Amino acid sequence: MSEIKIFSPATVANVACGFDVLGFCLDNIGDEMVIRKTDKKGICITKIEGFDLPFEAELNVAGVSALAMYEAAKPDCGFEIEIYKNIKPGSGIGSSAASAVGSVFGMNALLGNPYNKTELTQFAIKGEALASKCEHADNLAPAIFGGFTLVKSVAPLEILEIPSPDDLYATIIHPQIEIKTSESRAILPKKVALQDAVTQWANFGSLIHGLHTSDYNLIQKSLHDVIVEPHRSKLIPHYNEVKEASLQNGALGAGISGSGPSIFSLSKGLETAKNVKNAMKNVYSKTGITFEIHMTKINTEGIKIL
Amino acid sequence: MSEIKIFSPATVANVACGFDVLGFCLDNIGDEMVIRKTDKKGICITKIEGFDLPFEAELNVAGVSALAMYEAAKPDCGFEIEIYKNIKPGSGIGSSAASAVGSVFGMNALLGNPYNKTELTQFAIKGEALASKCEHADNLAPAIFGGFTLVKSVAPLEILEIPSPDDLYATIIHPQIEIKTSESRAILPKKVALQDAVTQWANFGSLIHGLHTSDYNLIQKSLHDVIVEPHRSKLIPHYNEVKEASLQNGALGAGISGSGPSIFSLSKGLETAKNVKNAMKNVYSKTGITFEIHMTKINTEGIKIL
Repeated sequence: MSEIKIFSPATVANVACGFDVLGFCLDNIGDEMVIRKTDKKGICITKIEGFDLPFEAELNVAGVSALAMYEAAKPDCGFEIEIYKNIKPGSGIGSSAASAVGSVFGMNALLGNPYNKTELTQFAIKGEALASKCEHADNLAPAIFGGFTLVKSVAPLEILEIPSPDDLYATIIHPQIEIKTSESRAILPKKVALQDAVTQWANFGSLIHGLHTSDYNLIQKSLHDVIVEPHRSKLIPHYNEVKEASLQNGALGAGISGSGPSIFSLSKGLETAKNVKNAMKNVYSKTGITFEIHMTKINTEGIKIL
Repeated sequence: MSEIKIFSPATVANVACGFDVLGFCLDNIGDEMVIRKTDKKGICITKIEGFDLPFEAELNVAGVSALAMYEAAKPDCGFEIEIYKNIKPGSGIGSSAASAVGSVFGMNALLGNPYNKTELTQFAIKGEALASKCEHADNLAPAIFGGFTLVKSVAPLEILEIPSPDDLYATIIHPQIEIKTSESRAILPKKVALQDAVTQWANFGSLIHGLHTSDYNLIQKSLHDVIVEPHRSKLIPHYNEVKEASLQNGALGAGISGSGPSIFSLSKGLETAKNVKNAMKNVYSKTGITFEIHMTKINTEGIKIL
């Protein structure tokens, strides 16, 4: 095998109470990439469709993660990368993570899978850092592992796969506005009230328990964010209306996807998820802001060969 | 049945990363209480052995929780309470919780169990509040439910039973010094760094996952407290030495039990727990401070009829 086509999924990080550590994987939204072995050494990005991104490997997220792996593996070949980008950069659903993960996953497969998933994430972190200026893995981990993941720590990298109930659906609305990562970071307080932190970890521990026990009622009660949402939601127009509409239509919970502007909700069952999708859509349809909306099952497989 | 004898267990609250929400139940340390139905209405404490505590029901933790239940149940009888107190008040292993829980558990049994465990905890909170000046349930819940419990919220009261591996042992050392609850509360900062809070909930979520999956290695990696321990440990003489000794002898983790001064450690297996017990004991034997030391399996049953 000298060429491989892969699907690299979009992901939702933070997930309300799980700021900076929790994420989950989406099912039918993602980038496609072709990775090809070449005799010529090095990493060469030969095609980018969808969005205007740099072709220089050192300046491209997929290129940087590919280089990190390439330097470690020292293979007797080179790689060409074609990127068919569907996830808009800056959307808040792991666009850079999908790119960072795609190149290393594809190269690993072509090399006979010398690296495990955590090692792949470690390489991908380098690419992610190019986009977000800091090393984090809360979008990378669900893209590679699928399902829900908890990044216990980045250094050393420790990723936990959290089970989730079968009938869980995500709805994501992506208002076509730009929020700078620097702005969404700057708006967060450096310190938080101890009492709020306690509430947050009570909710987070409960969410982990609820995912383990498929307790939708508990998942619903746990999907609250008292730390980050009060600040970042101000950057997203009509956030509270969208959230309220999704909850009133049966969503278990809703929150900011990553650092926004996308808003996610989680629902039990397809019918509820459809209603929630319509409700979220209705709110934004009245605003004049263009948007995309997606509804998917939780993708328990993660990145895959097409 | 008109008289019942019960065993009301000691408990460890906070459990490193689970400040204010997590607790577990101890197996062979606890109070005994006799609850007796009487024709004469009201709650009457007729005997207290072990420690000098008030006989007036309104001033006694067991009395206050008993009165809360009595007023709700409005039974056609009264109750006498005998308290054989083994857990020293102020030890940090749930002395007041054992008292608060014991009276309502016993009365409930004599009345044919009209109340479930969460309702019993709700009554017991009133007694606990007399001792600690605030309503909390992180010792009450494990005493009533057994095992590990997560108090998701106090109002409304929501308690989750977290599974734990079979081979988990706790060692508790109780230095015979007094730390005022007011002092241990006052030493805590009102605000904490967001980054520390993230570390804490990453650890807490990981601990819940580790308990669910019986992953001792993960439990070990998760039993860290970056929020409370740095402050409260200063109030406990030789805290760092005891912790270090227990870790060096194979403990999975160690921390402050409740608000101290007791120090707990958790170990996999009886042999390790014995070594840890000896190591903790050795540290304090050299200090001139008198102490008690206990080693028990996690008590998954909780409070029980003898």
